[in-house]
Amino acid sequence: MKSYIGLRELIESYINALFTYLFPEIFKNHLKESIDKGFLINNLELILSFFEDNKDVVNNEALKFVDNIQVIKQSIMLDVKAGFEGDPAATSYDEVMLCYPAFIAIGTYRIAHPLYIDGFKVVARMMTEYAHGKTGIDIHPGAKIGDSFFIDHGTGVVIGETTEIGNNVRLYQNVTLGAKSFSKNDDGSLVKGIKRHPNIGNNVVIYAGATILGGETKIGDNVVIPGNSWIVD
Amino acid sequence: MKSYIGLRELIESYINALFTYLFPEIFKNHLKESIDKGFLINNLELILSFFEDNKDVVNNEALKFVDNIQVIKQSIMLDVKAGFEGDPAATSYDEVMLCYPAFIAIGTYRIAHPLYIDGFKVVARMMTEYAHGKTGIDIHPGAKIGDSFFIDHGTGVVIGETTEIGNNVRLYQNVTLGAKSFSKNDDGSLVKGIKRHPNIGNNVVIYAGATILGGETKIGDNVVIPGNSWIVD
Amino acid sequence: MKSYIGLRELIESYINALFTYLFPEIFKNHLKESIDKGFLINNLELILSFFEDNKDVVNNEALKFVDNIQVIKQSIMLDVKAGFEGDPAATSYDEVMLCYPAFIAIGTYRIAHPLYIDGFKVVARMMTEYAHGKTGIDIHPGAKIGDSFFIDHGTGVVIGETTEIGNNVRLYQNVTLGAKSFSKNDDGSLVKGIKRHPNIGNNVVIYAGATILGGETKIGDNVVIPGNSWIVD
Repeated sequence: MKSYIGLRELIESYINALFTYLFPEIFKNHLKESIDKGFLINNLELILSFFEDNKDVVNNEALKFVDNIQVIKQSIMLDVKAGFEGDPAATSYDEVMLCYPAFIAIGTYRIAHPLYIDGFKVVARMMTEYAHGKTGIDIHPGAKIGDSFFIDHGTGVVIGETTEIGNNVRLYQNVTLGAKSFSKNDDGSLVKGIKRHPNIGNNVVIYAGATILGGETKIGDNVVIPGNSWIVD
Repeated sequence: MKSYIGLRELIESYINALFTYLFPEIFKNHLKESIDKGFLINNLELILSFFEDNKDVVNNEALKFVDNIQVIKQSIMLDVKAGFEGDPAATSYDEVMLCYPAFIAIGTYRIAHPLYIDGFKVVARMMTEYAHGKTGIDIHPGAKIGDSFFIDHGTGVVIGETTEIGNNVRLYQNVTLGAKSFSKNDDGSLVKGIKRHPNIGNNVVIYAGATILGGETKIGDNVVIPGNSWIVD
Repeated sequence: MKSYIGLRELIESYINALFTYLFPEIFKNHLKESIDKGFLINNLELILSFFEDNKDVVNNEALKFVDNIQVIKQSIMLDVKAGFEGDPAATSYDEVMLCYPAFIAIGTYRIAHPLYIDGFKVVARMMTEYAHGKTGIDIHPGAKIGDSFFIDHGTGVVIGETTEIGNNVRLYQNVTLGAKSFSKNDDGSLVKGIKRHPNIGNNVVIYAGATILGGETKIGDNVVIPGNSWIVD
């Protein structure tokens, strides 16, 4: 078996460093080094090298990712705004960033998704699984999620790999956007890489415990899905 | 944005210190300082100072909190007793304290609630969110919960801000005591601060996956709510 | 009250050491000592000594456990294989071990179950509760679980103490295999130690949110249980 010794620790430390870089008023730097662009590039190169031997590919990906980091921050801030505006219990943006697990889970998804798109799928998945462990919110980095997304409470939420979500969508705890069943090859093994999870439109609210399954399932715009509902195509 | 650097770490370390102070047979002191009343007062003052500039207010609140700490412990021990008596898998009080995540989640709620009542709402919320991350049990510090409360298994439990719960109540995993819908102001923003979550009577058991919503919803005394039920007013 | 100071930390560190010993390509050794069989025996003796004064009993149990460690590894690898083969999103065994919380939760159950069988029930429960806190998957160490078991996503899964599960079983998130109600003694206290949780056959798939309750409930072989279903005897 290939060695991945230290990879998990690097990734967890990198996610913490990114949050510290992007939100220095909230997160303390636990490292001895200062977290600047050079740090972010070098450490991402270390991580990507576990999966890619070509140094140019690794360096280009790390540069591209860090060049895009302020766009990621803007996207996360739209999610924070959506969190504040949609929850009567939230008293300020600060409170959303200090207290809401969705800030960590969605923020980590926003970080991991571009790496997934560029083919570093296991790195991206390890990032979102780190957030999953901390928050109970399981967002596959392959999902496509629009702007101003929020999840309230969040424990038990599962969003599968080929899910597509529009803008201004809000979920509550224990919502599953999942697969209905799996196609098999002639040899009985599962077909990998096909569309298996639903599409959700714009301005949708999905209440606690709803389960929406299947790659053909489409929820339109401006829809409210009741709690504990069960929807398949 | 205001700086909160170090606040998260202070709060997490403070919760750990409180559990060590209250239950020295169970929790190890990971700090260099000894955890005595002076430590508890000084560190709570540090935390509260992030939100309140008036030193007298901060000092009075810290003194009041620490003066009340043995009452909090007695309340937690009633919850431990309820956990032991209600679960056939529990063999001793020690086992409940060593193994049950509800001990951490409810204990942290018992610590946070008085701070919420006195207006330190974000501090209180950060405390219960720390426990939420560790246990999957999300208890808003604003909820009012009677004596001898227990949650078995617990993952996925959500108890909203304006919930009121009587004495001798037991919940199982994935129970939601939540809001049904949100009232809006004339400008379309949400009304904050109104009663949105249910009341639960005395001697109630709520089985796994039940969802009980709405500020007008009242569950009486001596009731058993079946699993996966869906109750709105 | 008896002192358990340091026990929690010993157990958490021991689980981490075991994963490092069994899967050195995945987990980094965070300890100063090297993790060899002597380390594993000595530290398990330390842990067991919190509950058993007889040194021979403690030593024999630690030797027996460590002698069996490669059998535990083989069992965990069958679970990994089942995880890979049952999930289209998994691209390799490595990915299952790097990313899937079920690897940690089921692996810890495989470690804890023999200790539970030999009477070290609280030690075993503390081990699986540590994994529960990290993954949201709550497997009681007393459950009997066959080969090639896997849990996808996993948050909110609860598997009770007297559950029995056959070979080739797969669960999804928020599945409960739980107790229906509890028998009481003449004095009103709960009867401890009776069969309270269901039996699941071989080649069974249980989709998200299903709740299966009761000691008399038996699911046969080759069955698919739909999501959000509610099954009692």
